[in-house]
Amino acid sequence: MAKQSRKLNVAMIGYGFMGRAHSNAFIQVGHFFDLPYELILKTVCGRNRAAAEAMAAQWGWEEAQTDWQSVVTRTDIDVVDICAPNHLHAQIAMAAAEAGKIVLCEKPLAMNLAEAKQMASAVRRLPNLVWFNYRRVPAIALAKDLVGQGRVGKPYHYRATYLQSWGADPERPGAWRFRKTEAGSGAMGDLLSHSLDLALMLNGVITEVTSLMQTFTPNREVDDAVLALTRFANGSIGTFEATRFATGCQNRNYFEIHGAEGAIRFNLEDMNRLEVFDRNDAAGVQGSHNVLVTGLEHPYTSHFWPPGHIIGYEHTFIATLADFLDCLAKNEPFHPNFDDAVEVQKLLEAVETSARSGSWTRP
Amino acid sequence: MAKQSRKLNVAMIGYGFMGRAHSNAFIQVGHFFDLPYELILKTVCGRNRAAAEAMAAQWGWEEAQTDWQSVVTRTDIDVVDICAPNHLHAQIAMAAAEAGKIVLCEKPLAMNLAEAKQMASAVRRLPNLVWFNYRRVPAIALAKDLVGQGRVGKPYHYRATYLQSWGADPERPGAWRFRKTEAGSGAMGDLLSHSLDLALMLNGVITEVTSLMQTFTPNREVDDAVLALTRFANGSIGTFEATRFATGCQNRNYFEIHGAEGAIRFNLEDMNRLEVFDRNDAAGVQGSHNVLVTGLEHPYTSHFWPPGHIIGYEHTFIATLADFLDCLAKNEPFHPNFDDAVEVQKLLEAVETSARSGSWTRP
Amino acid sequence: MAKQSRKLNVAMIGYGFMGRAHSNAFIQVGHFFDLPYELILKTVCGRNRAAAEAMAAQWGWEEAQTDWQSVVTRTDIDVVDICAPNHLHAQIAMAAAEAGKIVLCEKPLAMNLAEAKQMASAVRRLPNLVWFNYRRVPAIALAKDLVGQGRVGKPYHYRATYLQSWGADPERPGAWRFRKTEAGSGAMGDLLSHSLDLALMLNGVITEVTSLMQTFTPNREVDDAVLALTRFANGSIGTFEATRFATGCQNRNYFEIHGAEGAIRFNLEDMNRLEVFDRNDAAGVQGSHNVLVTGLEHPYTSHFWPPGHIIGYEHTFIATLADFLDCLAKNEPFHPNFDDAVEVQKLLEAVETSARSGSWTRP
Amino acid sequence: MAKQSRKLNVAMIGYGFMGRAHSNAFIQVGHFFDLPYELILKTVCGRNRAAAEAMAAQWGWEEAQTDWQSVVTRTDIDVVDICAPNHLHAQIAMAAAEAGKIVLCEKPLAMNLAEAKQMASAVRRLPNLVWFNYRRVPAIALAKDLVGQGRVGKPYHYRATYLQSWGADPERPGAWRFRKTEAGSGAMGDLLSHSLDLALMLNGVITEVTSLMQTFTPNREVDDAVLALTRFANGSIGTFEATRFATGCQNRNYFEIHGAEGAIRFNLEDMNRLEVFDRNDAAGVQGSHNVLVTGLEHPYTSHFWPPGHIIGYEHTFIATLADFLDCLAKNEPFHPNFDDAVEVQKLLEAVETSARSGSWTRP
Repeated sequence: MAKQSRKLNVAMIGYGFMGRAHSNAFIQVGHFFDLPYELILKTVCGRNRAAAEAMAAQWGWEEAQTDWQSVVTRTDIDVVDICAPNHLHAQIAMAAAEAGKIVLCEKPLAMNLAEAKQMASAVRRLPNLVWFNYRRVPAIALAKDLVGQGRVGKPYHYRATYLQSWGADPERPGAWRFRKTEAGSGAMGDLLSHSLDLALMLNGVITEVTSLMQTFTPNREVDDAVLALTRFANGSIGTFEATRFATGCQNRNYFEIHGAEGAIRFNLEDMNRLEVFDRNDAAGVQGSHNVLVTGLEHPYTSHFWPPGHIIGYEHTFIATLADFLDCLAKNEPFHPNFDDAVEVQKLLEAVETSARSGSWTRP
Repeated sequence: MAKQSRKLNVAMIGYGFMGRAHSNAFIQVGHFFDLPYELILKTVCGRNRAAAEAMAAQWGWEEAQTDWQSVVTRTDIDVVDICAPNHLHAQIAMAAAEAGKIVLCEKPLAMNLAEAKQMASAVRRLPNLVWFNYRRVPAIALAKDLVGQGRVGKPYHYRATYLQSWGADPERPGAWRFRKTEAGSGAMGDLLSHSLDLALMLNGVITEVTSLMQTFTPNREVDDAVLALTRFANGSIGTFEATRFATGCQNRNYFEIHGAEGAIRFNLEDMNRLEVFDRNDAAGVQGSHNVLVTGLEHPYTSHFWPPGHIIGYEHTFIATLADFLDCLAKNEPFHPNFDDAVEVQKLLEAVETSARSGSWTRP
Repeated sequence: MAKQSRKLNVAMIGYGFMGRAHSNAFIQVGHFFDLPYELILKTVCGRNRAAAEAMAAQWGWEEAQTDWQSVVTRTDIDVVDICAPNHLHAQIAMAAAEAGKIVLCEKPLAMNLAEAKQMASAVRRLPNLVWFNYRRVPAIALAKDLVGQGRVGKPYHYRATYLQSWGADPERPGAWRFRKTEAGSGAMGDLLSHSLDLALMLNGVITEVTSLMQTFTPNREVDDAVLALTRFANGSIGTFEATRFATGCQNRNYFEIHGAEGAIRFNLEDMNRLEVFDRNDAAGVQGSHNVLVTGLEHPYTSHFWPPGHIIGYEHTFIATLADFLDCLAKNEPFHPNFDDAVEVQKLLEAVETSARSGSWTRP
Repeated sequence: MAKQSRKLNVAMIGYGFMGRAHSNAFIQVGHFFDLPYELILKTVCGRNRAAAEAMAAQWGWEEAQTDWQSVVTRTDIDVVDICAPNHLHAQIAMAAAEAGKIVLCEKPLAMNLAEAKQMASAVRRLPNLVWFNYRRVPAIALAKDLVGQGRVGKPYHYRATYLQSWGADPERPGAWRFRKTEAGSGAMGDLLSHSLDLALMLNGVITEVTSLMQTFTPNREVDDAVLALTRFANGSIGTFEATRFATGCQNRNYFEIHGAEGAIRFNLEDMNRLEVFDRNDAAGVQGSHNVLVTGLEHPYTSHFWPPGHIIGYEHTFIATLADFLDCLAKNEPFHPNFDDAVEVQKLLEAVETSARSGSWTRP
């Protein structure tokens, strides 16, 4: 790892939607944050040479490759970033770990819990990251701060719905997401994993789950929707719903927390806002504060634009990367990492088990 | 029953919050609807004489009584309206039925399914009503019309949350609602019953349920919150949540339906609105219609005020009563009646069974 | 005036939409408030006998009359309530005042300022009221309280829009509202008068105005829309807009105040809410509080239903009447009265003058 | 101009907030759009050498300069982009035009109309652009399309408010914006200019204006707020309000249009949404469509992220630049250009004249 030079050469494996989001983050992070490293977009790697070359040309990668095995062992590569389809995560991550690289990987981390554990074990001594990017939505980071400050108080309810509608559209691209061998699961791994990661961050350990998985589409291999009830270690209870069949919703990653002192509500389709209820407001003016999370006093936002100028989806990747590089320079642990993703994977496995058995299941 | 005279003498048993809402309906229904009957507010009956007399004086009941047994058998009474605490519903209803009265009863109908069935059996040949008043919120009646017209299409998801917060407030009145012997249950009978009644009306039969019941408050006899997952006969899946611990929410009786053609969203705290998504709108302008349900073309609203002038909570009782009297005059069945309430009670029992067993339960 | 008996016999002149709203208030006020008087719905009076009789039958007036002149001088009438078309207000009010009655009158009070002054002079020693009912929307009364407590601070901006759309619909009833001889003006007297009355209550004296009046419809006698800029005596500045051509809006009586310490936002189509911004909230959670104004601690609402149960349009008349009767019993001045309406009328005249001259005008 | 090489060397004069937004656009435009040119970030120029060098380092400009006069005449520069304070726009633009450069300039274009006309004349034969970036908010571009398709119909009302609150905060940076010699005006040039540019694009020529300008802060040289009423050539009427004293609002660039067939509503604080009312929807479901403007069928958005993934403020600059480069390659006129900005400047001058005279003024 070229630490002394403070340059980091990046190889990205994959070039789809996530490849664009990651490329953007690698390029933009240094514009908005003072970085301890210079990131070099060394190589982008994908099965289809023309597509990889188009990606390289558009986003400024120095070169395009098609053979990830040779890329991840190259001595001039410091960082391997994985955004290939889910079923490839493990082998790429293991090989990169074997080669001693910094490993960044898209979510869901693995096809199953066993694989996830193996991967986490492989990278344990290496800097690593899983792209649960929504932790760094400024409004969600603010939610975490408020929870940490006790503004919500003892929690009673956690409620998460991740609602999309494209599963009902047969013309929609991204077909690998419907194949069990490549995606592992449907709404569960794609959407519920995000909701669970946020729940773990905001409300702690989940001790029990009962669930229902549903495939509405004939002959589809993966779940279109998944529902779950949960118990948390802190005594609160939760409902979770992730679906690709919520007509009218596009990317409604939503959660609410109700506690003894307050409540919090977030919706990714309105991601620069956080609704905050404070039971300690004067009685006559109690009501959810509609907070535009773009202020100088909010997490991350002062790095972007002045107050009142909203940010978009891609900034969540930029903020994630900035924090990761900061931890890297300070030699501090970064979250969410592979171990954090294992916790999510345990829950996904419990959800699947419960959906089969019809019983409450402990992860 | 004094049908020939077209006068209906009403006796109301109970004088709490619901007593006021019912009194208001008996008085107001004739102002907004052309009625086939004249309603006479004959007697209000309650344990505490002073309170009953105050109620009579304030709302214009001809007299106050304290002994419901003698009232329900009086020959000058045509209608017995029950809004006493839940544990009294059955005995009053049975006695009134025995005396051949028209029987109106608050929800939840009964303390348990057996009791509900017995009550339904008793009133089967008599006109009867259960005050699931939210069916006649104009926006909900519009939702029903839209579902009926196929505007939602094949349903995928049903999602209901009934969120209140007063359970956490020890100073709040209505203490009988926390006692198992009087209320039967907590959030389940009080709130979830409403959500289930609406779900049955809007989305049909529920075939299976798994649930969790929670009491946050030490020594409280009833549930503070109840969660459930369900399967519907039409192939859709549902989540239900009812709680008195949703800090910041006061009366958020909320539901959403997602179907192949559209979606619907309702929130009682904004009860003059319905959000309607239509997948057949032109692509560029697809988005939930924010419908102010006060128009000449909407259910019930032309009876009240001109378009744009909103109605309040109590109008739902007025519209319910108007429909009931109309059915009575036409000798047509009215819904929701005791049989409909039995269906809700079956589900409540299944919810309780599942909460104990941890398994999916068929009602 | 039959004060010793504490009964008040009411005669209502007019039987349209406002006649229904007033009848409702006379009937309902005693159900929700402890009244110092018993109101007797003695007679309803209107040109068309059949319509007057229908009104009497539906709402429980003891009798229907067609000759207002004879009604207002009857010795068995204590209160004359005027909701006839605008051009009749003056003569009825003057006759009722001459006969020493309590006089209640719909807005706009008069056809012009001279008439309004004459009317105010005639009733000066008599209890009197003008039905600017929106002052008693609980959320608006809360706004007034907050302004009074200094929660808004030194005001900078006042912004009012009263947006309806029915002016564009030729089929809409209420044709007298388009005739200059009966209505006096269009959107100005009908809608802007409400906005100005609220502005005077919430933000004080208006010292100067410039305006534009517009009639979109060929051959229509009255204004379809009116716009105005204003200066207030307290140093703040205002914009006003009232129109019957705001497609998509039904009864959007909206205002905002921005001051040094906070801001307030109200919309009649969502009339149980008030948005309140408090600059003194902690920096990270500053944002408009979305206040559901149905609480025990809010103005008027504890008289109606428990927290979270919203009220409708007609309750504003009930609350107005309750306050009026309370003032009457205590022999205290009530607002808004005819003198208050004269202040509105001065502003309407200034608006008309400015619209003709194109210059800033002092009322 | 280095057209044959298809490379464009850019010099940016200024390095404040706008310098960052422009730098971002120059870097990002090629990632999201297929460009006919390669943009080279040649030099950034500003008075303070250290600041200019920091800017160059952070955003990848090849070099930093402090003397704009020498920069704009350099033969290796193709594009001069001006984001220096307002009072410098004219001299830099004139010099760049003299040197035959492509000229891009921030808004407001000039300190007064005469200056604006002189600048427009100077660049007439050169490709030029004024950064009225909000025209390319996807939701606003959609609004323009809908207006063009007749979805709003004959317009009645145009209503624009641009509400910020930082003018009341003495600690806020950007002090030059309060100095008349550098900024020219306050809220008028900074905010109202945006609202007027959008109004001209969406609703056409403004024929008359009456206005009020207000400075709340003692000793402040520029206006804190400006209000105006307008008449449009198409027969509709308008209200405009721009202020830095709207407590609680951060960047609420808002407009509404009401026409015979529909209505449109936009708020920059929620910039990925457009509310669209269509009078031709079925009566029962009429209501504003809440359109999340991130779809494949919406303007610009398919270049960014998949449906449901929102964009931020800076994308408006990227889309503006993409369109400009496309026009440049096709040798087609681009809007908004200096001539378009002259039209805005005419209106600003009319607003100032009217504010002084108190009369309606024709631009």
